[in-house]
Amino acid sequence: MSNVINHEEIQKLIHSQLQWRYATKVFDGNKKISEADWETLTESLRLAPSSFGLQPWHFIVANSSALREQLVTATTPINKPKLDTASHILILARMKSLPVEYIDAYMELVAKTRETPIGAVQDYRNMIVNKFSTFPAEAQAQWTTRQTYIALGSLLTSAALLSIDTCAMEGIDPIKCDEVLGLTKTNYGTVVAVALGYRSEEDKAQHAKKVRFSMDQVFTVM
Amino acid sequence: MSNVINHEEIQKLIHSQLQWRYATKVFDGNKKISEADWETLTESLRLAPSSFGLQPWHFIVANSSALREQLVTATTPINKPKLDTASHILILARMKSLPVEYIDAYMELVAKTRETPIGAVQDYRNMIVNKFSTFPAEAQAQWTTRQTYIALGSLLTSAALLSIDTCAMEGIDPIKCDEVLGLTKTNYGTVVAVALGYRSEEDKAQHAKKVRFSMDQVFTVM
Repeated sequence: MSNVINHEEIQKLIHSQLQWRYATKVFDGNKKISEADWETLTESLRLAPSSFGLQPWHFIVANSSALREQLVTATTPINKPKLDTASHILILARMKSLPVEYIDAYMELVAKTRETPIGAVQDYRNMIVNKFSTFPAEAQAQWTTRQTYIALGSLLTSAALLSIDTCAMEGIDPIKCDEVLGLTKTNYGTVVAVALGYRSEEDKAQHAKKVRFSMDQVFTVM
Repeated sequence: MSNVINHEEIQKLIHSQLQWRYATKVFDGNKKISEADWETLTESLRLAPSSFGLQPWHFIVANSSALREQLVTATTPINKPKLDTASHILILARMKSLPVEYIDAYMELVAKTRETPIGAVQDYRNMIVNKFSTFPAEAQAQWTTRQTYIALGSLLTSAALLSIDTCAMEGIDPIKCDEVLGLTKTNYGTVVAVALGYRSEEDKAQHAKKVRFSMDQVFTVM
């Protein structure tokens, strides 16, 4: 529980930091995310919610400059400045399908973590297996993609709270990116890339007013 | 910027609150989310990031008990206790398609907000229109669904920071839910429902240890 920080300060923090964030176009190449902040961000991804807690994802940190250069070929030219200047580049990958072996590995982790016999989670395991057995392959991939977007939304918000700038890059070619990352023949595939770091003073986009529909336009109370 | 709160306190807040949260099964029916907290949560949804800033979503607050009862028929029985006891029920809906008229309305908002002539955003408008004109209807719906999941991820994290419990309910039947909400003949459709409030002391799930793969299992550094 948050005993240290006053509750109203948390409200204000969320308001101000979500106003402050924007899709950063150019990062300051000299500013790096601290180890403690990076640990917070990776932990926020590791703890991200997913349906049934299945975590059908993998996160790739593309730190080497050689790899970043290769990633440029997997994206639209508009993303090159981000790949060149961001402190960190993350690729969020999803599982292409949910094999029974994976669900069993997860259930073993549930039993181990909760110190319960594997038999005690058998009904839960069967419910999940039965559910996904009715999903065609394409529907499984769409489902794992959606779960990965929960992690994305959580990451962008956590970063903003830490005053870390981000840009989600959907314009990355998943097939080329998978080739660069060596994912092609695995059960994982690129969903989206995220550049993280600190906005450059030269990024004019930071001065553009945030554009949002009004509360009335996006909410209906029934 | 977050001047008030010490940076390390924000790191700790994110760590502790993401550990604290869990998919709440039973809420305390007597505890209601305060107006100030609710305003923070709705604002976090309104400000949620989306690709091109298009916000292809709508959020429905299902407050009336009559509506909640109807929603029970649109979901699996496992969700009934949440619909009965949560302080607030939200339905996150996506646009079923992205009509050119919508993109034009958004571009008008961009021009108005940034006090720029509409002609200045014409290239940007055309780029977006051209992009989505190549998407088959089903791909547009998948794209708007993914955007809505960014909002979901951001909401679940913002709520946790405020010590507000949540449960995302994917097991809601979108067709039935659309009927209940009167969305069937509109361009909006149910994606996911979220129960928000405060955990009941009787919810045993709060005592179950959080299950997550290790950092090594979900991250690769290249």
